[in-house]
Amino acid sequence: MPRNSLKHHLYVIIFGTHTRAGRIFDIALIIAIISSLVVLVLESIPSIGPKWASVLRYFEYSFTLLFTLEYILRLYCSPKPKAYAKSFYGVVDLLAILPTYLAFFFPSASFMGVIRLLRVMRIFRILKLVRYLQDSNILLRSLLMARRKIFIFFSTVAILVTIFGALIYVIEGPEHGFTSIPQSIYWAIVTITTVGYGDLVPKTPFGQAIASMTMLLGYSILAVPTGIITAELNQEMNSHRQLVKCPNCSKSGHEADATFCKHCGSELADPDQRVVPVDETQNAP
Amino acid sequence: MPRNSLKHHLYVIIFGTHTRAGRIFDIALIIAIISSLVVLVLESIPSIGPKWASVLRYFEYSFTLLFTLEYILRLYCSPKPKAYAKSFYGVVDLLAILPTYLAFFFPSASFMGVIRLLRVMRIFRILKLVRYLQDSNILLRSLLMARRKIFIFFSTVAILVTIFGALIYVIEGPEHGFTSIPQSIYWAIVTITTVGYGDLVPKTPFGQAIASMTMLLGYSILAVPTGIITAELNQEMNSHRQLVKCPNCSKSGHEADATFCKHCGSELADPDQRVVPVDETQNAP
Amino acid sequence: MPRNSLKHHLYVIIFGTHTRAGRIFDIALIIAIISSLVVLVLESIPSIGPKWASVLRYFEYSFTLLFTLEYILRLYCSPKPKAYAKSFYGVVDLLAILPTYLAFFFPSASFMGVIRLLRVMRIFRILKLVRYLQDSNILLRSLLMARRKIFIFFSTVAILVTIFGALIYVIEGPEHGFTSIPQSIYWAIVTITTVGYGDLVPKTPFGQAIASMTMLLGYSILAVPTGIITAELNQEMNSHRQLVKCPNCSKSGHEADATFCKHCGSELADPDQRVVPVDETQNAP
Amino acid sequence: MPRNSLKHHLYVIIFGTHTRAGRIFDIALIIAIISSLVVLVLESIPSIGPKWASVLRYFEYSFTLLFTLEYILRLYCSPKPKAYAKSFYGVVDLLAILPTYLAFFFPSASFMGVIRLLRVMRIFRILKLVRYLQDSNILLRSLLMARRKIFIFFSTVAILVTIFGALIYVIEGPEHGFTSIPQSIYWAIVTITTVGYGDLVPKTPFGQAIASMTMLLGYSILAVPTGIITAELNQEMNSHRQLVKCPNCSKSGHEADATFCKHCGSELADPDQRVVPVDETQNAP
Repeated sequence: MPRNSLKHHLYVIIFGTHTRAGRIFDIALIIAIISSLVVLVLESIPSIGPKWASVLRYFEYSFTLLFTLEYILRLYCSPKPKAYAKSFYGVVDLLAILPTYLAFFFPSASFMGVIRLLRVMRIFRILKLVRYLQDSNILLRSLLMARRKIFIFFSTVAILVTIFGALIYVIEGPEHGFTSIPQSIYWAIVTITTVGYGDLVPKTPFGQAIASMTMLLGYSILAVPTGIITAELNQEMNSHRQLVKCPNCSKSGHEADATFCKHCGSELADPDQRVVPVDETQNAP
Repeated sequence: MPRNSLKHHLYVIIFGTHTRAGRIFDIALIIAIISSLVVLVLESIPSIGPKWASVLRYFEYSFTLLFTLEYILRLYCSPKPKAYAKSFYGVVDLLAILPTYLAFFFPSASFMGVIRLLRVMRIFRILKLVRYLQDSNILLRSLLMARRKIFIFFSTVAILVTIFGALIYVIEGPEHGFTSIPQSIYWAIVTITTVGYGDLVPKTPFGQAIASMTMLLGYSILAVPTGIITAELNQEMNSHRQLVKCPNCSKSGHEADATFCKHCGSELADPDQRVVPVDETQNAP
Repeated sequence: MPRNSLKHHLYVIIFGTHTRAGRIFDIALIIAIISSLVVLVLESIPSIGPKWASVLRYFEYSFTLLFTLEYILRLYCSPKPKAYAKSFYGVVDLLAILPTYLAFFFPSASFMGVIRLLRVMRIFRILKLVRYLQDSNILLRSLLMARRKIFIFFSTVAILVTIFGALIYVIEGPEHGFTSIPQSIYWAIVTITTVGYGDLVPKTPFGQAIASMTMLLGYSILAVPTGIITAELNQEMNSHRQLVKCPNCSKSGHEADATFCKHCGSELADPDQRVVPVDETQNAP
Repeated sequence: MPRNSLKHHLYVIIFGTHTRAGRIFDIALIIAIISSLVVLVLESIPSIGPKWASVLRYFEYSFTLLFTLEYILRLYCSPKPKAYAKSFYGVVDLLAILPTYLAFFFPSASFMGVIRLLRVMRIFRILKLVRYLQDSNILLRSLLMARRKIFIFFSTVAILVTIFGALIYVIEGPEHGFTSIPQSIYWAIVTITTVGYGDLVPKTPFGQAIASMTMLLGYSILAVPTGIITAELNQEMNSHRQLVKCPNCSKSGHEADATFCKHCGSELADPDQRVVPVDETQNAP
């Protein structure tokens, strides 16, 4: 791709984040996304939706046209349009505009309008490209490192919830609202996560004893995922500090917000630039 | 036991997990267990259970026969059948098939059907034999190391719950639903675990003050088990990293997901094989 | 105090925990305390209390006599009876027997019976003297080290709860159940601790927005006490490991459950004896 | 400013905390603030407010006069009165007295009285100037260091809440109380934070499945902020221990509550004086 072509200029503005034009594009896009979400939400409020229907529809059509234009430009300037269209964010971009067209041609499909709320996910793409990349990566790597422990934890919760749900179903029975095992498992989840809606409550003393055990268990196993994440995060942050090296004396171990080397005093690289934004190439290389 | 006998071949398939046949057996077993659980759950749903009763019963009988066959094979090929039958999983295996036979001969005992939900525990055995062994062990060792602190924590919670339950019983009394001390202790547990069903709520200002104290206490002591688990997990993970040694340079301290030694670059042992699965011999040696 | 007097023998049995007789005394006392608690709880249940009133009263009188005898013996054999009577546990011991005598002479004071539930605190004394001393001390020291941070945390919660309570009082008002500022502060505590009874709920959109903010705030500041306790516990456990020294090679850093020195292999002191039980002298020196 | 002028004396008493007069002033101020808050709260209680209206109003006027006098003195003795009036606490001080005057001249503006509850924030200023400064700073720095991770966490929660709110709106619909998307997002926040009022609950099996997912998600992502705060706090506390240096041997690494150097035994600086109260100059230099 020639460096001075229109295509390349567009690519730098739309996919890049390091130029001034790129940043203005990103901010404008975030404003457009949030505005279109506000329109969607207003549409659903009984006292506003029907009254302002025509105005809101006009706004919705404008935003859809805008996002359609943006989608076409992304397809046009991306060096690998197919890869972009198939990528996660490519699909989200398409799903963000499709329902409006479908509702236009098939008015009965208007309930699909909620899919447009997926637009909220587009904000993620913009955020992660800019400055929060590094911290986001630390969080993600911690979760990835802990994925096995988290899987074991959720299997344990699933089994506990099945057993306690079945127990309460046998003890309390349909006359107290526990009409089926799935319903009782739903109660067990509501209880073990300490949400406690109160739409299903045990009435017999023995049922209340089982419920108390479920609560205390839920209350204490909440400590396990926290322990897992914290321990991983601790290790991840420690190993991360080792990665940043002073360009002058090559010593590592600098605080995350340090701008000068604590050994020789020479300036360190900008925290936002220290790690190469690996995901950028992934979206549209 | 001769290495080429049918008995030994069966043993490797049923109890082992390292051969291809053993893995296929495990996956087939997990599918069968989950399917039989789905049948059980469907049976309990008022709009499905009675309508499809005969079909569901047919499936239930098939699964019970299958699990009976498996149980007999386990007894046959295990080198110490008695030890297997008395072991935790041996009892679970038996409890998973017994209720169906009992319900067949004594139809009034059908409520025992829920015991069949214990089948869910059989999934644990398979899971722990395969790849999640190591992380599961770290979690278990952390909990074991912290058992005294956890015991102290639960004694404190039990005493707090008794005192606050008695206080609210005296202040609110039967006219606001606190009909007995066990009922009031149940309320205290619902409150201190932050579940908060709302079936029992204090109505007097003084009762609400006591409830507020209970909540704030519950809210803050939740920090204690988390702190305990995290601190133990931190130490366990650190000491674990010391266990894995490079076969070439014998240096330890490798990350949990490292595949190469960070000192000399030679390949490390497969993480899943690093620790000998100690529990395997325990079930059926 | 002469070492062979009856007084000294009694002292060793009642206050000590290292002799066989002392341990049997402790276990018998725990059983008596728990039994007397069960009697108290049974008394409060409407379907049991009135029916078995005379039997339960008989048991209550027996336990009270027993505890009275124990209290007199403690006063008799303690080297400093006055110090014992004024100590925390001396007062608890007296409060555990007084209400029964008061109810006997002034029948109208029967509601004071609940004070007898303080007997539950006597279990603490016995527990802490025996084996859980060390871990209990680590937990207590962590809480003491963190007391300033915990105080700041609770002041912040108190101020937040006042502000959000006042806000919801102005927005929702008496017509939605928020009849006064204390009532609204009670709502804010129920919400910020994520208990959520549901007896008071915001009905207006703006009230729900304020409630959402309160929830998200409560949800995230829960992280602060956990962080404080974990960080302190981590440091406490690390410094504790440094305290235990091998009697042979004098090296420290042993795991909490180690029985042999990991450097030279010689046996370490019994974990339960490693730290001098400082509280024993405090109760009755 | 001459060191012996009345202005300087007042400045030391009102803004300073190191002299005896300054401490007495601070304690008197805290008592006055809390008393005026109690008056405000009593005013709002239906059974007390109207009955004691005149007495409470008299107290309110007294406190307002007192705080007005204090505000004028602060303006008078501050070396930079304008900077003080524009500072955060200057505005809070003004807001604490203004509503009473407004309600006096415009009786209809009495609902603004709740703004007076902002007086509660004045307690913060006094607290932070005295002894809790250091620990408060550690907590604040940890939160500041973690601000990016916390921002990512809250963005994720906001997006999840929007998606799950929209899902439940489509599935349950207005007939089960989910009348609009904002209402449904409110439900999602109530559920994901595990508050669970129970004013809005899913009734259909599919809605309950979505609710279960929301709960389990909320239950487990609660681990993320805790992990972040703990890891930062851990690092902050470690680096803080390095800051305190022995005035004799210049070695660092002392425990937070140490009063003597652990290397040479010479006395360390008083923990409360170790760090210069940086905020003091900020308020009124």
